[in-house]
Amino acid sequence: MATIRARIAARSLGPGERLPSIRRLAEALAVSPGTVVEAYDRLAAEGLIRARRGSGFFVAGQALPPLQLADPAPAARAVDPFWVSRLALEADDSVPKPGCGWLPPDWMPEAALRRGLRQLARAETGVLTDYGGSRGSARLRRLLLARLAEEGLEVGPGHLALTGSGTEALDLVCRLQLSPGDTVLVDDPCYFNFQALLKAHQVRLVSVPYTGTGPDPAAFEAVLATEKPRLYLTNSALHNPTGATLSPAVAHRILVAAGAAGMTIVEDDIFADLEPEPSVRLAALDGLKRVIRIGSFSKTLSASVRCGYIVAPPDWIEALTDLQIATRFGGPSPLAAELIAEVLTGGTYRKHVEDLRRRLERSRRDAAHALARLGFTPALMPRGGFYLWCRLPDGLPEGIPEPRSDGQSDRHPRAPSATALAERARASPTPLVLAPGNVFSPTRTADAYMRFNAPHTMMPGVLERLAAVMA
Amino acid sequence: MATIRARIAARSLGPGERLPSIRRLAEALAVSPGTVVEAYDRLAAEGLIRARRGSGFFVAGQALPPLQLADPAPAARAVDPFWVSRLALEADDSVPKPGCGWLPPDWMPEAALRRGLRQLARAETGVLTDYGGSRGSARLRRLLLARLAEEGLEVGPGHLALTGSGTEALDLVCRLQLSPGDTVLVDDPCYFNFQALLKAHQVRLVSVPYTGTGPDPAAFEAVLATEKPRLYLTNSALHNPTGATLSPAVAHRILVAAGAAGMTIVEDDIFADLEPEPSVRLAALDGLKRVIRIGSFSKTLSASVRCGYIVAPPDWIEALTDLQIATRFGGPSPLAAELIAEVLTGGTYRKHVEDLRRRLERSRRDAAHALARLGFTPALMPRGGFYLWCRLPDGLPEGIPEPRSDGQSDRHPRAPSATALAERARASPTPLVLAPGNVFSPTRTADAYMRFNAPHTMMPGVLERLAAVMA
Repeated sequence: MATIRARIAARSLGPGERLPSIRRLAEALAVSPGTVVEAYDRLAAEGLIRARRGSGFFVAGQALPPLQLADPAPAARAVDPFWVSRLALEADDSVPKPGCGWLPPDWMPEAALRRGLRQLARAETGVLTDYGGSRGSARLRRLLLARLAEEGLEVGPGHLALTGSGTEALDLVCRLQLSPGDTVLVDDPCYFNFQALLKAHQVRLVSVPYTGTGPDPAAFEAVLATEKPRLYLTNSALHNPTGATLSPAVAHRILVAAGAAGMTIVEDDIFADLEPEPSVRLAALDGLKRVIRIGSFSKTLSASVRCGYIVAPPDWIEALTDLQIATRFGGPSPLAAELIAEVLTGGTYRKHVEDLRRRLERSRRDAAHALARLGFTPALMPRGGFYLWCRLPDGLPEGIPEPRSDGQSDRHPRAPSATALAERARASPTPLVLAPGNVFSPTRTADAYMRFNAPHTMMPGVLERLAAVMA
Repeated sequence: MATIRARIAARSLGPGERLPSIRRLAEALAVSPGTVVEAYDRLAAEGLIRARRGSGFFVAGQALPPLQLADPAPAARAVDPFWVSRLALEADDSVPKPGCGWLPPDWMPEAALRRGLRQLARAETGVLTDYGGSRGSARLRRLLLARLAEEGLEVGPGHLALTGSGTEALDLVCRLQLSPGDTVLVDDPCYFNFQALLKAHQVRLVSVPYTGTGPDPAAFEAVLATEKPRLYLTNSALHNPTGATLSPAVAHRILVAAGAAGMTIVEDDIFADLEPEPSVRLAALDGLKRVIRIGSFSKTLSASVRCGYIVAPPDWIEALTDLQIATRFGGPSPLAAELIAEVLTGGTYRKHVEDLRRRLERSRRDAAHALARLGFTPALMPRGGFYLWCRLPDGLPEGIPEPRSDGQSDRHPRAPSATALAERARASPTPLVLAPGNVFSPTRTADAYMRFNAPHTMMPGVLERLAAVMA
């Protein structure tokens, strides 16, 4: 490879020129023809040379894009529910992301993942090559049934399907249940991607204020009576973004109201493992009559290993299985599911999660103190998880006018504005990805709030950058 | 673990009973407490015992489902476009699947996949734990741009996004382009999952007869004039199920017609690598003006490593990127994309694909001869790939009445019926998964045809089982 590279670099082999035949080069270098074939193939994979079938290898006529193929710079765009996701997924590693929704790599069970990959390298061939069953790995489904039983959700195999991710589980439910124009209920504030997903489904959003103990029950009953939503999407135990926990009394009241209105509830329990003590769950309370439970391992095990799951009545699971075949030809990657199963059965996952909870408690406390010194006030101190939903300091920075739906600009902006601060952080020469309150708020009434990811906020230099953009 | 298992089996520890404390058991067995924790965790992962946070481990109250958690037996269902997928994905390994759409595990690059997994076990931590960029691995995108350039499709990074699979790429295009009630054009016959996917999108299907050189051009022009379809989904090089190849003259004519009608074409090129010599491609001919190219590595590298891609104008890619965030929070698993990149750059993939083409040529020939002895006649001998689209022998077995759309049963069934044969094969004590012609035919006029997967057909015992169900 070095020989050919040098010749191309020195232009003794020019663009379009044919490379020496495999036999000739093998003789010249006194190596086997197989070695030359492999070297040529690697150079072709790098784009330096190209194969033409039946006629050998040629120097590539045109340089290929550089190895670090960055995402094309996104066009300037509104600070909408996609804004944080795009910035956080597309920013390079040097940009701190106190607004992102996942833990730093060194908080994840790295050693167990590496061990799992080495074990998978010895798995039976079908795991490495086949599509897998229509509901995903039987081994992982069995482990999940055991975990669900621990939580008080005793269900049979017909109630469970694996999906490509937690988000895909939610998308499948929406595809099954919703038609354009339907009404869907979410919390205010809620996870911004609920809004992005529901926009893709072309449904009408209504919202209910979220309090420290769940959705405001009176407002919940009122919106069910007037708006007749088909679905309600929520997180119970550690609400995103507020970190609040649903209380048993509110849980009971909203289940009764949902029952009376014939509305289905989707409980997204993706943060379940980060709770210090189990709290009430709608799915367990209701016994899956009108509550569908979804989850994944993205927040505690790996977001790279894409796999989610859905727990629902068997007729729903049956319909979702068809839908998964139509839209992605089956369940999640067997490799991904087996890797998760390896980590779950490896004997270290429970301790990893306990360590995570302890580290997160310290991290939330430290971040709350550090943010308080900058004038941010947490709306509440969450029992678990990694989010802090903080009120901005008064009067800092100046609010910017928000475009209104009537096209006029608002002449009486409220200050402070998290949107303005997040835009300023994005455009700074030392940028930061922040998560301004309004991207979580269907009514856009949370511009005085910001969601902070405690471990990312406590990474070196982040608070200094934040202080600088606030100056 | 053996100690606890034995006590539970002997009922000296009964359901609900508390296990010895970690410290006590460690002392009794003279092992470290860490060893006991790991053993308890593994037993909990198996479902034999359960942890209650803060209060120790208990014997599980209820037995868990058996380790082989089979898919619940699917209800008897119509022989529709989902029928083959469900049977092929859900049948256990002992059931031969000459109707399936993938290669047997030992035809896939097993050694390269295992080597890739061992390399991934040493990858940087972010690859193992993070979501990855919104368009997927930059390394794999760069390799794909090089491969596309080899095919004559010279495009920049803004034209390419990775997706969760080839099917998901197609689904994203449909979500972006279609509304319920729109009209979509497919080939007759066509890949059955095109129909399943379009059903999920609630669109109206129209079809055009597929010939040995592509869609019938006169019928194509006529259907564009009268039906105004928004999209046309097709495979150019190795058409599924017929194995036919689009001719340059037909390609030109349908591009002109599509241009005049303002219709977008989606070219699913998933079998591209299995072609012996490159043939004409709509995307390359058209230069991506109205043709979108999708593909994946499921057929030549691994179906377990889920990753597809889409090549389209940059404004489409931008919209698809948002849609992928909304519906699955980003591109494919970084682990999956890196594994594919490892195999592509490992220096053995090109030879693997050449070997595949040679083996498949032999396999198609052998299968055609063997099937001819049972009375099946291939409609054509494909240039590549693994499918043989065969006419059934006359009069065998008896046709069964097809339910008609008016609810009456058809009193003059045509014999032979591939549907009847496939149903008989499914219900046999020595079952086979077959792919009857009508699941591929939007007009349900292909009941005299069956699609055979040559390598699966040539596996030991398959022809004998087929002969038995035909008797």
